[in-house]
Amino acid sequence: MTELGVVRRKIRRAERAAVEALGRYGVATVHEAMGRVGLMKPTMRPIYPGARVSGTAVTVLLHPGDNWMMHVAAGEIEPGDIVVAAITAECTDGYFGDLLATSFMARGAKGLVIDAGVRDVKTLTEMGFPVWSKCVSAKGTVKATLGSVNVSVVCAGAAVNPGDAIVADDDGVVVVPAEWARKTAEAAQAREASEGEKRLKLAAGVLGLDMYRMREPLEKAGLKYVD
Amino acid sequence: MTELGVVRRKIRRAERAAVEALGRYGVATVHEAMGRVGLMKPTMRPIYPGARVSGTAVTVLLHPGDNWMMHVAAGEIEPGDIVVAAITAECTDGYFGDLLATSFMARGAKGLVIDAGVRDVKTLTEMGFPVWSKCVSAKGTVKATLGSVNVSVVCAGAAVNPGDAIVADDDGVVVVPAEWARKTAEAAQAREASEGEKRLKLAAGVLGLDMYRMREPLEKAGLKYVD
Amino acid sequence: MTELGVVRRKIRRAERAAVEALGRYGVATVHEAMGRVGLMKPTMRPIYPGARVSGTAVTVLLHPGDNWMMHVAAGEIEPGDIVVAAITAECTDGYFGDLLATSFMARGAKGLVIDAGVRDVKTLTEMGFPVWSKCVSAKGTVKATLGSVNVSVVCAGAAVNPGDAIVADDDGVVVVPAEWARKTAEAAQAREASEGEKRLKLAAGVLGLDMYRMREPLEKAGLKYVD
Amino acid sequence: MTELGVVRRKIRRAERAAVEALGRYGVATVHEAMGRVGLMKPTMRPIYPGARVSGTAVTVLLHPGDNWMMHVAAGEIEPGDIVVAAITAECTDGYFGDLLATSFMARGAKGLVIDAGVRDVKTLTEMGFPVWSKCVSAKGTVKATLGSVNVSVVCAGAAVNPGDAIVADDDGVVVVPAEWARKTAEAAQAREASEGEKRLKLAAGVLGLDMYRMREPLEKAGLKYVD
Amino acid sequence: MTELGVVRRKIRRAERAAVEALGRYGVATVHEAMGRVGLMKPTMRPIYPGARVSGTAVTVLLHPGDNWMMHVAAGEIEPGDIVVAAITAECTDGYFGDLLATSFMARGAKGLVIDAGVRDVKTLTEMGFPVWSKCVSAKGTVKATLGSVNVSVVCAGAAVNPGDAIVADDDGVVVVPAEWARKTAEAAQAREASEGEKRLKLAAGVLGLDMYRMREPLEKAGLKYVD
Amino acid sequence: MTELGVVRRKIRRAERAAVEALGRYGVATVHEAMGRVGLMKPTMRPIYPGARVSGTAVTVLLHPGDNWMMHVAAGEIEPGDIVVAAITAECTDGYFGDLLATSFMARGAKGLVIDAGVRDVKTLTEMGFPVWSKCVSAKGTVKATLGSVNVSVVCAGAAVNPGDAIVADDDGVVVVPAEWARKTAEAAQAREASEGEKRLKLAAGVLGLDMYRMREPLEKAGLKYVD
Repeated sequence: MTELGVVRRKIRRAERAAVEALGRYGVATVHEAMGRVGLMKPTMRPIYPGARVSGTAVTVLLHPGDNWMMHVAAGEIEPGDIVVAAITAECTDGYFGDLLATSFMARGAKGLVIDAGVRDVKTLTEMGFPVWSKCVSAKGTVKATLGSVNVSVVCAGAAVNPGDAIVADDDGVVVVPAEWARKTAEAAQAREASEGEKRLKLAAGVLGLDMYRMREPLEKAGLKYVD
Repeated sequence: MTELGVVRRKIRRAERAAVEALGRYGVATVHEAMGRVGLMKPTMRPIYPGARVSGTAVTVLLHPGDNWMMHVAAGEIEPGDIVVAAITAECTDGYFGDLLATSFMARGAKGLVIDAGVRDVKTLTEMGFPVWSKCVSAKGTVKATLGSVNVSVVCAGAAVNPGDAIVADDDGVVVVPAEWARKTAEAAQAREASEGEKRLKLAAGVLGLDMYRMREPLEKAGLKYVD
Repeated sequence: MTELGVVRRKIRRAERAAVEALGRYGVATVHEAMGRVGLMKPTMRPIYPGARVSGTAVTVLLHPGDNWMMHVAAGEIEPGDIVVAAITAECTDGYFGDLLATSFMARGAKGLVIDAGVRDVKTLTEMGFPVWSKCVSAKGTVKATLGSVNVSVVCAGAAVNPGDAIVADDDGVVVVPAEWARKTAEAAQAREASEGEKRLKLAAGVLGLDMYRMREPLEKAGLKYVD
Repeated sequence: MTELGVVRRKIRRAERAAVEALGRYGVATVHEAMGRVGLMKPTMRPIYPGARVSGTAVTVLLHPGDNWMMHVAAGEIEPGDIVVAAITAECTDGYFGDLLATSFMARGAKGLVIDAGVRDVKTLTEMGFPVWSKCVSAKGTVKATLGSVNVSVVCAGAAVNPGDAIVADDDGVVVVPAEWARKTAEAAQAREASEGEKRLKLAAGVLGLDMYRMREPLEKAGLKYVD
Repeated sequence: MTELGVVRRKIRRAERAAVEALGRYGVATVHEAMGRVGLMKPTMRPIYPGARVSGTAVTVLLHPGDNWMMHVAAGEIEPGDIVVAAITAECTDGYFGDLLATSFMARGAKGLVIDAGVRDVKTLTEMGFPVWSKCVSAKGTVKATLGSVNVSVVCAGAAVNPGDAIVADDDGVVVVPAEWARKTAEAAQAREASEGEKRLKLAAGVLGLDMYRMREPLEKAGLKYVD
Repeated sequence: MTELGVVRRKIRRAERAAVEALGRYGVATVHEAMGRVGLMKPTMRPIYPGARVSGTAVTVLLHPGDNWMMHVAAGEIEPGDIVVAAITAECTDGYFGDLLATSFMARGAKGLVIDAGVRDVKTLTEMGFPVWSKCVSAKGTVKATLGSVNVSVVCAGAAVNPGDAIVADDDGVVVVPAEWARKTAEAAQAREASEGEKRLKLAAGVLGLDMYRMREPLEKAGLKYVD
């Protein structure tokens, strides 16, 4: 059961080298390397194009319209972390702006992933602090009710534990459990290694039908070419 | 990491007496008793009004457009279970109809909770087999790709482990972790006990403002009555 | 500007006879009689079918996830009122359940219109207390932040002033400004009077094309019948 | 290209006996019998539960906020038809109410399928005139701009030609091209015939895993049972 | 009651100096300075990033699929105005393109805010004419039915009166009632003045927890730090 | 009826010169030239701004979560084609990434239009391969079930036949039936020719009210100017 009113201080972060490796492969490759699980919903979009980050999750659970725990979360950030913010119910409010971003950056955060809204996006873009969010909204929040920091949360359809590896880029956000980070990085590397050769063949006009030997299984499945 | 291609056979189900007790209090009370967490999204609606069930979760993870694992899940149902079906991505297909319901009922299932579509809803209603789903859709599915049964899933925004207690009624669906079932049932009972007296007072015209002693904190917060 | 932290006590309610008359004609007719304005969005649905109410608006403005002002609003209800609840941002939380309904009924409220969620819908249905809402949700709220009562609000896309006439039925919710209530009731009556004869003609197989003399304007507009 | 300003008078309606047969099997079975195509989106819902109709399509193409062509369509209805209304862009307005329903019924229409809103739903329910629509809305429309009647349209994601067979029930709406109606009815009958025996077996506790001989293919695909 | 068929010529515009000042602070700051009200929904997005405008509202009320009144509105624009377009029901049509933009710019308009669609967005971007809209759509509209110009409207969930101050940037759109413009500008200035020092402290690594003295209230509320 | 398991090899492509001409006028003009039909829904957005392409449709029908037929479609591409991908039900999965794009480009495809998700969008942008899609999603797909290539499909609300002319730009996507391509290109040219002069007049401050002679019809319709 998700606990409210709790800040967990000791979390096991995914191994740094693995987290950094995951960041090199990007969301699509990492998601495939995990066996096609772990993705957040496609509603999570970056506030500006081109950013790619990987880091370890500091999770925060907030109430609709209340960003009090964001300030508590700031206190738990270590360099290389990405804050992952979940709300106890659907909310589009702007929980995060340039002041909090200044604080998060000073603490070493590499980005924010939030299943709600964000504001001051022009300034955040200029600061180079990437955020993946459900929407952009100037709507302000109150500071009245306790949530939690570094508990298990569900963010945009994905289960996230504190310390999990997070990779985010223009394709979305993927969560890799801390204990799977190294193995997934290796699988991603293997996957990417095999893509270079494929790309060359496809660029030369070879069809995937032939390269992947799909013609026979397609015919067996009953595919018919007609005029 | 959610594993694909796995059926876990030994799961620890929440204590039966606690699960039954939770069913008496209903979703709203149980959710409050848990501290306002554990709810699935309000997109989950019953196919007919008036049903209320509680049971233990048999989880199933499916791919978009593929209901193969529903048949595998049927084999894991024990009397008193509720099947909780999650999809690896958004899908509205009709994964479940009257034939599967016949099988689930024969195995003792008390209902289905699915973050996708369901069909044959008229027949399901006549059979009295309750389903909470995101939508109704006649769209058929294929049986081609492995998912999993009895792994941890995220269904409609809520994390569900196999064996967790599930309560579902006209207000939605709530998940109570197996190890919290008894304690939550007790908290729900206490909550409900205190409501009877309140209801009588309110029915007699006493205002919540007075019954809950809100006038002073409202004034302190700055509330002004003006003409 | 919408003020927060204010409860207006003296509001001018629409004339009772006019409000009651509006209730006889229903939402579709009243909306047409107003010149096709004043409707809330079609996302506003009744929690059970068949109810039709008319009343005078007691408005309440709430924050996401916070229903404190609902209790304040209860204190302002006079018999014949309908509470109209707006939220300062999108929210699906369940702001209202059977206890508040008991209190509202005791005060003489005829219903609730809320651009958010409601819970305990089975009990509300049994109590016969109609609610029009954006969704059903068991999600509980806190009581921490001031909103307002009886200020101008926007609810589900419609501007509502305290005292305005509200008509709600299976077709949705329409708002009639207090000063227009009588005139609108008269227009609705005239409209309805003319419908009886039309209905008889149409039932006898006369086409609207002929009854409304549309054939000539359609031809002028260029409509072509082809084989 | 969809033509505007045209009413086609001579359309080839699907064979009556086939259309009636399709109505006996219902949407889910017919959709499967067609090879899992032809369904409208699950956003199309009946205004009251329990209705099932089949008929031949009279199509009408309308502009946002304008129901003029509904009156033109009424003139083209023959007994046994179902009117299928598409809009040239997304619209939630209430294009249809009890007066038009009176006219449609007098002409022999069996129902309406509209990718927009409908109003007077309480009266329509009492009249027993079934409508499948995207929403309920009292919002009135104007009569100013030409659309077309009995041209090819796309309604709720499905291509519909005038004369096609339409089947609609609690599971949604399916379109069967006129020339495929008989063949599809036969396939549906075969499908339904095979379901009775399956239902008995499943009710007796036989698993689909065994009845459909899925255990071997599941094992081949790599499914693992673990403790 | 919103009147149709009316163009109000004499409107009281918010004081120019205050409107210009509001534009310097931006949407998030102005919204906070107003007490967290007045925002349009986050569905309103700019067609290109980086624009920030402030101006006085010329309002226009249109019907679904009909942009006739846009041309009437053009005639009411004075230099420094922003046109705010509301539709009587949900509509995604493209009401506005490069020709109307040319006209609006020639009249001195600083932008358009429309709760519907816009087209020719590439050309509008090249022209530097900013639009905040619900969507981009090439769908054309007719010119057949009267709406109104310079009446009170609800646009994207916010009430707007002609002459109100509008501020729009990458964070969205906020409405400041004309009579509150000066006072709000002053509050915004005060707010912004206090942010510079906070930003420096946060950048230096001071936590909001300490800067805002939150540790004590958090502890009082029951927050627990655990290992 | 849409056939599954079929690849049509001989399709009649719209005349090349006409297709190229359509590309010069863009989506908004072509859509108007067609009489305001043929547009896909505004949910279809380009993955990067500024692209405009026209081409002939190679259609592909896919199942939710399954991109097998994309590889089959690649084999049917001729230089100048645009692949139009429809799914048999709503799906947001990422059916297409940089490897398929490499293959499509090698075959001469000018772009992709898909009523689902796409991934590797940063790489696609760098490659200059434009895609119009419903969303961006890294979610991978399987290759298990047959769909079809070059059959009639409905994509994002528009009926598309193989060989139809497709025009796509920042305003969306429009479909021109092959047999109407030349005529539509001529109508688009005429439309564009007339716009230059209008633009000059509007830029000089002439109102559309006067240029289009709207004042009289507005007055006749009852428009009133008031103070």
